[in-house]
Amino acid sequence: MNEGPRRRISRRAWIAGATGAVAAGLVKTRADALSLVAQEAPARAAVDPTKVPGRFTSEVGRRATGEQPRRLARTQALSSSSQSPLQDLMGIVTPSDLHFERHHAGIPEIAKGGHELLVHGMVDRPMVFTMADVERFPRVSRLYFIECSGNGGAAYSRDSMPTEITVQALDGLFSTSEWTGVPLATVLREVGVRRGASWLLAEGSDAAMMSRSIPLDKAMDDALLAFGQNGEAIRPEQGYPLRLMLPGWEGNAQIKWLRRIEVTDRPTMTREETSKYTDPLAGGTARQFSFVMDAKSTITFPTYPYLLPERGWWEITGLAWSGRGRITRVEVSTDGGRSWADAALQGPVLPKCTVRFRHLWDWNGREAIVMSRATDETGYVQPTVQQLWDARGDRTRYHFNNQRAWKVASDGAVTFGLGELV
Amino acid sequence: MNEGPRRRISRRAWIAGATGAVAAGLVKTRADALSLVAQEAPARAAVDPTKVPGRFTSEVGRRATGEQPRRLARTQALSSSSQSPLQDLMGIVTPSDLHFERHHAGIPEIAKGGHELLVHGMVDRPMVFTMADVERFPRVSRLYFIECSGNGGAAYSRDSMPTEITVQALDGLFSTSEWTGVPLATVLREVGVRRGASWLLAEGSDAAMMSRSIPLDKAMDDALLAFGQNGEAIRPEQGYPLRLMLPGWEGNAQIKWLRRIEVTDRPTMTREETSKYTDPLAGGTARQFSFVMDAKSTITFPTYPYLLPERGWWEITGLAWSGRGRITRVEVSTDGGRSWADAALQGPVLPKCTVRFRHLWDWNGREAIVMSRATDETGYVQPTVQQLWDARGDRTRYHFNNQRAWKVASDGAVTFGLGELV
Repeated sequence: MNEGPRRRISRRAWIAGATGAVAAGLVKTRADALSLVAQEAPARAAVDPTKVPGRFTSEVGRRATGEQPRRLARTQALSSSSQSPLQDLMGIVTPSDLHFERHHAGIPEIAKGGHELLVHGMVDRPMVFTMADVERFPRVSRLYFIECSGNGGAAYSRDSMPTEITVQALDGLFSTSEWTGVPLATVLREVGVRRGASWLLAEGSDAAMMSRSIPLDKAMDDALLAFGQNGEAIRPEQGYPLRLMLPGWEGNAQIKWLRRIEVTDRPTMTREETSKYTDPLAGGTARQFSFVMDAKSTITFPTYPYLLPERGWWEITGLAWSGRGRITRVEVSTDGGRSWADAALQGPVLPKCTVRFRHLWDWNGREAIVMSRATDETGYVQPTVQQLWDARGDRTRYHFNNQRAWKVASDGAVTFGLGELV
Repeated sequence: MNEGPRRRISRRAWIAGATGAVAAGLVKTRADALSLVAQEAPARAAVDPTKVPGRFTSEVGRRATGEQPRRLARTQALSSSSQSPLQDLMGIVTPSDLHFERHHAGIPEIAKGGHELLVHGMVDRPMVFTMADVERFPRVSRLYFIECSGNGGAAYSRDSMPTEITVQALDGLFSTSEWTGVPLATVLREVGVRRGASWLLAEGSDAAMMSRSIPLDKAMDDALLAFGQNGEAIRPEQGYPLRLMLPGWEGNAQIKWLRRIEVTDRPTMTREETSKYTDPLAGGTARQFSFVMDAKSTITFPTYPYLLPERGWWEITGLAWSGRGRITRVEVSTDGGRSWADAALQGPVLPKCTVRFRHLWDWNGREAIVMSRATDETGYVQPTVQQLWDARGDRTRYHFNNQRAWKVASDGAVTFGLGELV
């Protein structure tokens, strides 16, 4: 497997003549490619760093000057979202300050000292918990993805599919963190769930009082009251000081700024599960609850607006996940889905978590359609967009987990498409 | 296991009387405890967050106002270090801006575009690689700890052991990240290592030109040329744009700001492996190379200056790791090492990575000595300080992996000690 890159990596100049060498290697955009034409040698630091003393230690670090990854936060509105820069990210962990956002009434400012969680309804002992109470229960920490159910809408549109769209704009309502919290089941046992209860209502402290109904089975299974994200307190945009974590389920149900849980014997039929977050199906019916995020994969390189500067070996890479358990397989096609090859999965492969996949591709310089498809441990295979249309019609606004495709033109330019429809 | 907390968590007021309730639960410091005496109810937000619109989305997030974890960066000097706030962290991931630092001549400012890696010496094809060259090789991403070999010195001093020391000051030269890079073996195959080569020299671009000799076996095994940390580019303090990653080995050998690798047939005997980073042994001899970090565990709660406000169930928690592979067991003692119980290990348990351990303890309100000891898959057991003294004398300045102990006084105050010597 290492044969390819060894041949193809441009032979850098030998030591004697190194400084005059033409910069080769990865060219990310057309602008990069053009700038290379005008420039014989790579930019050099103005000062030799071995000749000047460095900066001192600090209480909180900062990014390198040239590395400023950014969320895509286009709209200034209370109901809004921002996307994680998937094209810039490596591995599976999303830095907490780049985790995608989806707010229904902006980000509330909540002091931890005053925040309380009320648990009531069909319980023996309704209680109010301070954050100190919640944090004192036995904890768990787990790596999980969160994805907005509206993620990837552009990968479903039959009529207005953009071709010049980045993977950040396409699939960036998706992030992965190590979450820490206490099992919701522990707290429900503390209050004593009454016989006959089967659902609960979770309500946030934001100005939307974002509310969703959750089956009790999920609450007792692996749901968490989460207060930690990637080692530190959850960020305000992710629900500080407390959010509901429903591993593998759609993001909107994982109520942020959680302040109330009411145990019930039926769904509460909130706005966000009647007018929103329901899936129209073929035939005019609708699926009200679509909690689980089915298996999906998305390529992060090569994607628009990258430009492959030369034929040869390139590592196709991306992310795969399933809300139903572990990813067991990711396949990659470079011919628009006619043939597939198994990609390598970067371990550890964890349930309801993201896996990074990689596949070495020897590009022959001709037009190619690059795709990926994921399979999870239930045997479910990420569908084509046609299969999704056949199953659900084309009116749904959620759960766009169909296969994506990226066209590599013979000049190396990459644009977005939909597999057989490109 | 959940019986305890359920009994001990203070019963919060019932809904009707909730607002007048005395704040109970976790009290972290004496100051907290005192402030509670003066204050009947927890602080409340000035404004009900459900009644005001929240803040908009942003390109880069920020921490909550009340959550500002800090490295301990006490000295302003070129050769210096700062420690991660272990007492504040959850799970195993360290936020990149809180990763510990150890610099020998400050943090150099290096532009990625001008950075190059020279690989030469006993090779067939000496080469200079740009960062674009390096990044184009097939990548891997893995969760690994890094620990400074000088970490924990206060847990070894027979004469001047402080009792009022935080776990951050004690063991904070230790952090965990998801690292991304290319196997060093790939690049060494690219240049062609000559027969007879057995070592290499790695040199940094800082003003110290920090240099260490590394056995070729390690380089060909799992060493990485790393450029990614927790999803993004490595932070400047961690070696941007390129560092050597030697999983499980002492931090100083994992050369940051890596600019040169010379393949050799013997150690180069640099300053940092002759006058520094060697271990005096009993009998007047010295161990020159102590690359591997042996199994160790450290408790993060309860530690100084926390104060347990009441008897009952508390979760003792901490971190364990081994440079030789996986941690297989962590035991906790609450009687100064006379009896031990198995702690729960939070999966996934990965090789040469950190594991979070947890153990529920029903504190009876009497003085207690809380300790932990780790065992790794080689069967190695974290030694007592007396065992370490017996093996190495008391002059060594590195590899203080002996068991730590924390004394909980009958008033709940926690101070540091050394197990049977407390």
